[in-house]
Amino acid sequence: MHSHELKEILNPGSIAVIGATNNEQTMGNGFVRSLVEYGFPGKIYPVNPKHAEIAGLKAYANIRDIDGPVDYVISSVPAYAVLEMIRDCGQKGVKAIHLFTARFSETGRPEGIELERQVLEAARAAGIRLIGPNCMGLFYPGKGISFSDALPHNGGSTGFISQSGQMAEDVCRYAALRGVFFSKAISYGNAIDFNECDFLEHMADDPETERILMYVEGVRDGSRLCAMLKYITPAKPVIILKGGVGESGTRMTSSHTASMAGSKQIWTAMVRQSGAVVAESMEELLDIATTFTFLNPIKGFNVGIAGGGGGASVLAADLCEAAGLRVIPLPMDIREELKQSGSKIWDWIDNPADMSIRDRSDFTPGHCLELMGKHPDFHLLIALMMDPHHEHQKKITLEDILAQFKIDTRLIKPMLAVVPDKSLGCEEFADWKWELLCRLRSKLLELRVPFYPTVGRAARAAWKMADYFARAVN
Amino acid sequence: MHSHELKEILNPGSIAVIGATNNEQTMGNGFVRSLVEYGFPGKIYPVNPKHAEIAGLKAYANIRDIDGPVDYVISSVPAYAVLEMIRDCGQKGVKAIHLFTARFSETGRPEGIELERQVLEAARAAGIRLIGPNCMGLFYPGKGISFSDALPHNGGSTGFISQSGQMAEDVCRYAALRGVFFSKAISYGNAIDFNECDFLEHMADDPETERILMYVEGVRDGSRLCAMLKYITPAKPVIILKGGVGESGTRMTSSHTASMAGSKQIWTAMVRQSGAVVAESMEELLDIATTFTFLNPIKGFNVGIAGGGGGASVLAADLCEAAGLRVIPLPMDIREELKQSGSKIWDWIDNPADMSIRDRSDFTPGHCLELMGKHPDFHLLIALMMDPHHEHQKKITLEDILAQFKIDTRLIKPMLAVVPDKSLGCEEFADWKWELLCRLRSKLLELRVPFYPTVGRAARAAWKMADYFARAVN
Repeated sequence: MHSHELKEILNPGSIAVIGATNNEQTMGNGFVRSLVEYGFPGKIYPVNPKHAEIAGLKAYANIRDIDGPVDYVISSVPAYAVLEMIRDCGQKGVKAIHLFTARFSETGRPEGIELERQVLEAARAAGIRLIGPNCMGLFYPGKGISFSDALPHNGGSTGFISQSGQMAEDVCRYAALRGVFFSKAISYGNAIDFNECDFLEHMADDPETERILMYVEGVRDGSRLCAMLKYITPAKPVIILKGGVGESGTRMTSSHTASMAGSKQIWTAMVRQSGAVVAESMEELLDIATTFTFLNPIKGFNVGIAGGGGGASVLAADLCEAAGLRVIPLPMDIREELKQSGSKIWDWIDNPADMSIRDRSDFTPGHCLELMGKHPDFHLLIALMMDPHHEHQKKITLEDILAQFKIDTRLIKPMLAVVPDKSLGCEEFADWKWELLCRLRSKLLELRVPFYPTVGRAARAAWKMADYFARAVN
Repeated sequence: MHSHELKEILNPGSIAVIGATNNEQTMGNGFVRSLVEYGFPGKIYPVNPKHAEIAGLKAYANIRDIDGPVDYVISSVPAYAVLEMIRDCGQKGVKAIHLFTARFSETGRPEGIELERQVLEAARAAGIRLIGPNCMGLFYPGKGISFSDALPHNGGSTGFISQSGQMAEDVCRYAALRGVFFSKAISYGNAIDFNECDFLEHMADDPETERILMYVEGVRDGSRLCAMLKYITPAKPVIILKGGVGESGTRMTSSHTASMAGSKQIWTAMVRQSGAVVAESMEELLDIATTFTFLNPIKGFNVGIAGGGGGASVLAADLCEAAGLRVIPLPMDIREELKQSGSKIWDWIDNPADMSIRDRSDFTPGHCLELMGKHPDFHLLIALMMDPHHEHQKKITLEDILAQFKIDTRLIKPMLAVVPDKSLGCEEFADWKWELLCRLRSKLLELRVPFYPTVGRAARAAWKMADYFARAVN
């Protein structure tokens, strides 16, 4: 496999969807509709002998009936029809098939395993490369290729390689809510031909991709993966979430993508030693992706924290420390500076800077963060943004909050913002507090300040970035 | 201290707010307004020599000028005025003062420590009991007593003892979003007179309180606390979050509530051995509170999971196992039952039940949960509810989702629902998906099914409950 082959395959001029349907609830329809809606500029050919038109496009009874060339096929036919479909594609000169078709080795049944073997054999005989089977395939918003109407239309600079189709979709749509958008996301399922290493090699070379996320259940060739990670990660961060790290999860992976998973400790050590970043849940994968997308490298573990009241400050210190960050005491020269400026709490205020003890209303979290940001002992900052909740706070504007935290382009240290999840529960869904938080979050991203719903999550993501750069050769 | 004394103090017939003001942004005003808004049925006396009227009520120059008796005083005067205020209260025959007033030992300054000592001395001389100083005091919605306009007006069956005022407010308002409401919440600050053990003793005896949450920074008497927990927890669960468990957090507690905190490991072991439940963050405190509020006892660690696709199922298995739950394989007799009913995936489907492999659309997560719920090998169930995100899902009704999961009153095993946080980010704030999730969450609570934003959080909360009952004597 050479990376340039995959590059060509993932940039098709024309796509046929075999097994397309007119039922909006099936993927056979969804694939066609998504290509239309996301603006794929090449030819789209729905194939189904039972329909003359699908999703507003002319449909073909067989791929062989199509006049022009077909570069890429999305197969939505049932498993029993897949061998014939591959032979048809071979005759048509198709280069690659994405097999959404499932029910192969992941069933654990001998007939499924045998059929999967035959599929690979047939594809090789026909000179066709395979993505899948049992996967959602390619999301490439820049080229108008999507497998779902729930994915963001915007493209971005993050790549995602996901063995699971559901994870590919969930991560892309949740990441969008955090301001992270994708160059490409690929769901690759049972990986009988192209596997995670092939896609990783491609994304490593891909100029549109600045960082790579991975969700893998089984690894076909661990030493190849580690060697590639060692080669790639000094230049491009790779963040990996592994499914099937425990006993029961391992049992599940075999029935999901027919993968053999392994021990969590071995996996984590192996991946970390290879220079990649290990995420332990989907939420953490999103948090770390946000951190790497928005922040300059965090080059140390000393964190300065401001904005909370007493309880929040104490808990923030605990959680940052539990995550591996160092919550250093407020340096004496900052205290001196506070004293000079007339503060009456210069001897009392600390790091985290507890804002409930402030003596003057014009002394803000922004002042503390500015002092910490300028000080060489601090490597990163965390702004604890309270969610407004009193009626008199209804007058607070977005500008007030930003001014309180002095968040502007003069930021000289990486800063993470904790914006609590107002929307955690079952409260009325359209109130002013929620609206303000939404606008705040959008604005923070505009200012390149990523946000996190809890300080624990911010701290763990920051530690993972700092750890990445602490291990980095260059 | 006898619990009945505190019972009387926390049920005042009249309240004076000394240091009341007309500035809506100060607590001196907030205390008065909240008592009015939450419907305190007794007399409310604002005290401030500069005003004739405060928040629509007649104001008094001095507490001694009030005609009727004053049972309870909220002090919002500055620290320098506090000794005189206590003497005035003594002359008036006040039983208890809640000192919102701060700037005592928590400043770390000799003069603050000395003043705090004098405050206690003056109160003892005057026969007055103290709550605080440096705290928000009492929230008792059933009696119309609130310290903030952001707290829920509804009362409930959960008690909260919080050293931090911010935590008292945040936990109460966030808990409301999860359907957990409070009998009483008490913020007690520096605890120079009544401390966490006194309040614990009171809530243990309080018939309105069925479970007790605590946020403590420093413990004055560890052996008394443990002895009380051992006595209380067999009958009433106590869930404790400790602030200041690390090095930096410990440093912070001294400047927040002048508490000496200690090692996390020792604390956790000590509290768990005393029969209480340890929470490690505010979110976990809320999760566990929700679990204990809505569910019958979880009496074992075997979890049945259904509702996710492949990736979500694999990760759910991993996260449940990491939390200490046992994700047992699907029992053979359930497979047999599936086979009998004509399922073509009886040999393939497992626990978690991956819904992406189902062969018939009338086979739902609810079927799997029902089979698991009836089976003696399972002790609890987790329903993975996907958030609808495709346009064609816009037609989905709340009733559809509930039917899919067969959530009804026939539930025979404790069930936790994972409802993802659609509102994580900066997306538009009033779309149909968010509204549907809000309504779903409200409905689930109505049906006594608590919800959690991630499976990891559901799993950890469930484990903590199962562990509590595994340790319980009765």
